[in-house]
Amino acid sequence: MKWYIAAFLLTVLTSSQGILTTLSQSNGKYKYDYATVPFLAEVFKLIISSVFLWRECKKLPPLKMTTDWKTVRLFPIPSVIYLIHNNVQFATLMYLDTSTYQIMGNLKIVTTGILFRLFLKKKLSNLQWMAIILLAVGTTMSQVKGCGEASCDSLFSAPIQGYMLGILSACLSALAGVYTEFLMKQNNDSLYWQNVQLYTFGAILNMARLVVDDFRAGYEKGPWWQRLFNGYSITTWMVVLNLGSTGLLVSWLMKYADNIVKVYSTSMAMLLTMVLSVFLFSFKPTLQLFLGIIICMMSLHMYFAPPSMLVGLPPTVRSDPDSLVIVSDDHKAES
Amino acid sequence: MKWYIAAFLLTVLTSSQGILTTLSQSNGKYKYDYATVPFLAEVFKLIISSVFLWRECKKLPPLKMTTDWKTVRLFPIPSVIYLIHNNVQFATLMYLDTSTYQIMGNLKIVTTGILFRLFLKKKLSNLQWMAIILLAVGTTMSQVKGCGEASCDSLFSAPIQGYMLGILSACLSALAGVYTEFLMKQNNDSLYWQNVQLYTFGAILNMARLVVDDFRAGYEKGPWWQRLFNGYSITTWMVVLNLGSTGLLVSWLMKYADNIVKVYSTSMAMLLTMVLSVFLFSFKPTLQLFLGIIICMMSLHMYFAPPSMLVGLPPTVRSDPDSLVIVSDDHKAES
Repeated sequence: MKWYIAAFLLTVLTSSQGILTTLSQSNGKYKYDYATVPFLAEVFKLIISSVFLWRECKKLPPLKMTTDWKTVRLFPIPSVIYLIHNNVQFATLMYLDTSTYQIMGNLKIVTTGILFRLFLKKKLSNLQWMAIILLAVGTTMSQVKGCGEASCDSLFSAPIQGYMLGILSACLSALAGVYTEFLMKQNNDSLYWQNVQLYTFGAILNMARLVVDDFRAGYEKGPWWQRLFNGYSITTWMVVLNLGSTGLLVSWLMKYADNIVKVYSTSMAMLLTMVLSVFLFSFKPTLQLFLGIIICMMSLHMYFAPPSMLVGLPPTVRSDPDSLVIVSDDHKAES
Repeated sequence: MKWYIAAFLLTVLTSSQGILTTLSQSNGKYKYDYATVPFLAEVFKLIISSVFLWRECKKLPPLKMTTDWKTVRLFPIPSVIYLIHNNVQFATLMYLDTSTYQIMGNLKIVTTGILFRLFLKKKLSNLQWMAIILLAVGTTMSQVKGCGEASCDSLFSAPIQGYMLGILSACLSALAGVYTEFLMKQNNDSLYWQNVQLYTFGAILNMARLVVDDFRAGYEKGPWWQRLFNGYSITTWMVVLNLGSTGLLVSWLMKYADNIVKVYSTSMAMLLTMVLSVFLFSFKPTLQLFLGIIICMMSLHMYFAPPSMLVGLPPTVRSDPDSLVIVSDDHKAES
């Protein structure tokens, strides 16, 4: 599979996730316990990866599987970071209104770029940095509320703690992504084996979360396993399968592409969801959405198009084994 | 003078033009006849250019001045286009509200790029086209009304004639700019001589406009020359001098730089005016303004920075007399 096909699929699945989740509600409320969905998705991913691993194990040459404790102990870390992230998110929402919170969420595009550069030592060109910032600006813009909508003058007036927590949240989200990429690429282990480790810990930590939530709520609604499938409809199951498939695709992208590709996919999905909402949920399109889409499309082109195409060098390109020699005219900048 | 110093000066003067004009009002109204300001500015430019031309004429080597009718007859054309443009603007405002009208005004950035490419045969790289579109998106974004402000749901609901006239207006404005650049660059004539021709026709056509306006109004307020300096304050005179100096700088840029440089200067001036208004007129800053500024700054960098800096080529650049040979690593795009 080519990375851009995986990225395209991730965009479509992430976008349908939002739409399916909305469709799974009745009168704006969940009839089921939404916290059980990520747990079931982890279990789904674990089952799929185990089946694939088992099938591959029977083939020759044998799969590469590192099983020493030094490597295995790294696999719970992403789940632990996500768990911390969830709690920080919860704390952030105590200080920020949902609009500001949503707007600040776009910061994770930039923090991902920074951690990607710092921890994975990947070099980005000047233009690629600009593309990443533009992507964040474009997604933010598409979310700016239109006139006449609910008041939003609270945008810059929340307590400072809220903004600090928002930034921390963006850093944690980026850290989880970058760390997962490091895990997947650290050795040539089979993707299925890496997934099995990742999702085993994922399932355990999600289960732990359900247990803790039950304890906090004083078992008012009974233990989590008794209400696991309560109120589940066909759509709820589709939400679970969709979330699971999204996770598997992200895992694939972390191994064979990178975090930036993932960030582009999910940002495009956010815009696609908004466009689809115009048709499905009679969401009123704004000029901001339109401008945001233009900016994100240009960012996409800037980041992924070959530089020779971007800077308008004539097609006299000679290819050496290790380097690319480009012959160009003098640039307009000196005009 | 370097082109970027002229461009910077143009930004500062254009920005102060907006602020001075606001300051010259009393309680939001003009105490003087604003239509007389452009006429006096044309006269000011004509006087300055004549003085410089006269001084230069006494020097050696003699100035290059083409005086045959075939060349001179081209100089009224920009003024005529501006006159048509003014009338189209007036017609546009009968269909569009001022917000939509202002937003559509940013289209002239894109039309200038297109006419610049078509009529002046200047080639722009892929990246420079993106930079121009981003500049238009950024300026538009900064003008999007915030929540709670006067209703703006009329944004996409005006009659189609309004939008067509808005597009025509953007084309005419771009055409006047591109035509002036063609005029100034068609030969090596002295800039002062070209200016004298340009502003003589400019002054005549502005005067004609005052006469026609008087005729239309049935001489209710008397002939224009009787109210020429009526209600003029020091600030009004500063508005005149500022408008005149802006015109002289634009003229210089048309000869020694180009329309795109002018478009960047005036767009940056628009943003600078909005930022200054926050301090001077307690204008409430919006997230949109902030995002718009980021986009315009990146557009500026994308358009004018050397391509080798943008695409992150290592500094192994050898310069041939006519071409630039760049040796680069393989680009990330294949990841």
